[in-house]
Amino acid sequence: MKKKFSFILLVMKSIYLDWAATAPPDPEIIHKSAQVAIDYYGNPSSLHRQGVSALYLLEEARVILGQIMDCEKQELIFTSGATEANNMIVNSLLKRMSAFSKTAQKPGIVISGLEHASLWKPVQFLKKLGFQISVVNPQENGIVKAEKIYNALHKNTVLVILMLLNNEIGAIQRIKQAVNLVRDFSENNGRRILFHTDAVQALGKIPLSLKSLGVDSACFSAHKLGGPRGAGALYVKKDTILDFLYKGGSQEAERRPGTENLAAIYGFAQVLKKIAEQISSNLVQANELMDRFIKDLLKCPGISLVPENRYEQNQAQFSPFILNITIPPIPGELLVRVLDDYGICVSTGSACYSIKKKRTRVLTGMGLSEEKANSAIRISIGPDTKEEDLEFFVSILKRVIPQLKKGSAFNKS
Amino acid sequence: MKKKFSFILLVMKSIYLDWAATAPPDPEIIHKSAQVAIDYYGNPSSLHRQGVSALYLLEEARVILGQIMDCEKQELIFTSGATEANNMIVNSLLKRMSAFSKTAQKPGIVISGLEHASLWKPVQFLKKLGFQISVVNPQENGIVKAEKIYNALHKNTVLVILMLLNNEIGAIQRIKQAVNLVRDFSENNGRRILFHTDAVQALGKIPLSLKSLGVDSACFSAHKLGGPRGAGALYVKKDTILDFLYKGGSQEAERRPGTENLAAIYGFAQVLKKIAEQISSNLVQANELMDRFIKDLLKCPGISLVPENRYEQNQAQFSPFILNITIPPIPGELLVRVLDDYGICVSTGSACYSIKKKRTRVLTGMGLSEEKANSAIRISIGPDTKEEDLEFFVSILKRVIPQLKKGSAFNKS
Repeated sequence: MKKKFSFILLVMKSIYLDWAATAPPDPEIIHKSAQVAIDYYGNPSSLHRQGVSALYLLEEARVILGQIMDCEKQELIFTSGATEANNMIVNSLLKRMSAFSKTAQKPGIVISGLEHASLWKPVQFLKKLGFQISVVNPQENGIVKAEKIYNALHKNTVLVILMLLNNEIGAIQRIKQAVNLVRDFSENNGRRILFHTDAVQALGKIPLSLKSLGVDSACFSAHKLGGPRGAGALYVKKDTILDFLYKGGSQEAERRPGTENLAAIYGFAQVLKKIAEQISSNLVQANELMDRFIKDLLKCPGISLVPENRYEQNQAQFSPFILNITIPPIPGELLVRVLDDYGICVSTGSACYSIKKKRTRVLTGMGLSEEKANSAIRISIGPDTKEEDLEFFVSILKRVIPQLKKGSAFNKS
Repeated sequence: MKKKFSFILLVMKSIYLDWAATAPPDPEIIHKSAQVAIDYYGNPSSLHRQGVSALYLLEEARVILGQIMDCEKQELIFTSGATEANNMIVNSLLKRMSAFSKTAQKPGIVISGLEHASLWKPVQFLKKLGFQISVVNPQENGIVKAEKIYNALHKNTVLVILMLLNNEIGAIQRIKQAVNLVRDFSENNGRRILFHTDAVQALGKIPLSLKSLGVDSACFSAHKLGGPRGAGALYVKKDTILDFLYKGGSQEAERRPGTENLAAIYGFAQVLKKIAEQISSNLVQANELMDRFIKDLLKCPGISLVPENRYEQNQAQFSPFILNITIPPIPGELLVRVLDDYGICVSTGSACYSIKKKRTRVLTGMGLSEEKANSAIRISIGPDTKEEDLEFFVSILKRVIPQLKKGSAFNKS
């Protein structure tokens, strides 16, 4: 009986290469968080001992996160996740409309073409309301030129959005450089411009200091690093006054109402604390893995990296945890499903948009052809990924590519 | 050593009478949810097996909740909690502004004076933007007359907000009656009016059927019934098209973006399933407890119930889980703190607003004097509350009231 069971397990074993969608949670952290939910059940807003002890733990989590992210604890607002944090930033501008309604020029937003849907779509909504949107696409290598952002600024620009580490191709953006140029423009123009960065894929993966980045706001998510779902954070630099839309209780200094998800927030702090100590060693390991992986992939005919010249570039420009490849004319979605039959979990791009709709905006924005973009898949790894997992992936890829290339419906169209 | 430890535990034992702020979670549910977080870690939006199995569990939770709440599963949108759900409803009206901007009459909202801050404050924000807000206060008995709501409607009314079970005084509102009158008005007027109810304190406590209530939208929270934090639901009746502000991924049929907090949602469904079977017996038990409790309290000089005539009324109009009392001139906040010294956890009102600011809007709205409102405290019980807990509460109250009444600073002012 026992033998049969382990055989089934072996067959069903999945090789998880979709860490950028969500990381397999650290069981120790999850169980500890559950215990916190049970032991510290008081509402942190309550005045009694149960509330006070919960509040204490909440603030302890904020201190831990602030120390690791290099910001003051008051600068962190806990949210349900990064999507909420991103929406909060964009929608906080809604009130600006009235300030500008009498002027000829509308308030402006400069947004990179690399952004996640949770920034892209709210910005599109503001566009409908009359905001002036400038999209700055990355170069072919996936990097947005800071000068292009500077050139897109105009005197009514109120917000600049540039992602720290792209979730689809792993390109690391030059935030500091862009921030400096925006600050220069801002000083000359006499109007403050908010600089927001989506740092979800960077936290716990590459060294990160909010002070040194110099941004006004940034967002983070716990579940991308092995923490619980339901906890994220929005960093807002002190003295930055933003009017967030959701109102209610006085939680988070009246900036984000609703009973705090203490257990998840606790887990967020604990998982980051654990991972922060391993960032350097994880990076070394991932760089080695990725280097070998890319070399193996490049030996397979028909596969190209996205961006195509990724391997020729300075590898410090890319996260070793995310790789995007394209195998035209095989549709990415088909390949994802076929690989799943072999127990391999990868994705076509952002999980948030992988269902139903094609999602190639980011890739075509950097100059990739429609066909290559539709054939792209993302492989994202984590600290638990083993060399043999990637070798297995390559061996399966070698097996399925010829089958998929010949005689498939998409080949005839 | 062991003896000493249990002695300390005894001294520190807390009697938790603040269930309306948050319920002590069911440890079994919390541990099961943690296991779900670990086992079903895939992102439900992912196409691979890890994603699909997570999606399956997510939809299973939706089915369970829909069956118990008596609605279709597609009518439930998972949120991070009730505060988010309430804000979603109010802010979905923001786009209506433009439709009305050319007309002389502004879009109108009718809101009861009983509402939680997560509805009250977003409505105040819309007021600033030009919406016409009509507040309908409850009568002295804590019940809002349906006719008063009807009389407040005008031809540009787009939303009516009336809480099902008030969180501060426990009064159960006549939703069906109000819905019927609003529907009558709506039909005569030819414009659809959205009817929203905050059902947070009702779910799992009193029998509830969304179909029978007839509302267009309702909100719920898992942690108020012993489930995990971070999961709530917004019910939106089918064929009701609302444009929610937060955008991003295609989760929840594009109505609420962000990776779903599957473990918490699973726990939400499981805890409601467990509690649903016990609603009748819990109600009988709570009614008996509350009846004896009120009788004991009424024997204490200086204590009055809020509303004062609660005990003379039909008890079916009140939740037996929530009781509000006032002991003027003792400030509620002081009493809460003193009771905490005896290990008793109660609150002054909604936990969401118990810190720093006085929160007497709801009580003064029903005609209570400022002094009585400031002296109010809420005692809220749950299925685990024992008769001796309430007896202990009464005995401590008897001891501290005379001490607090004589010689305190507030008495001299």
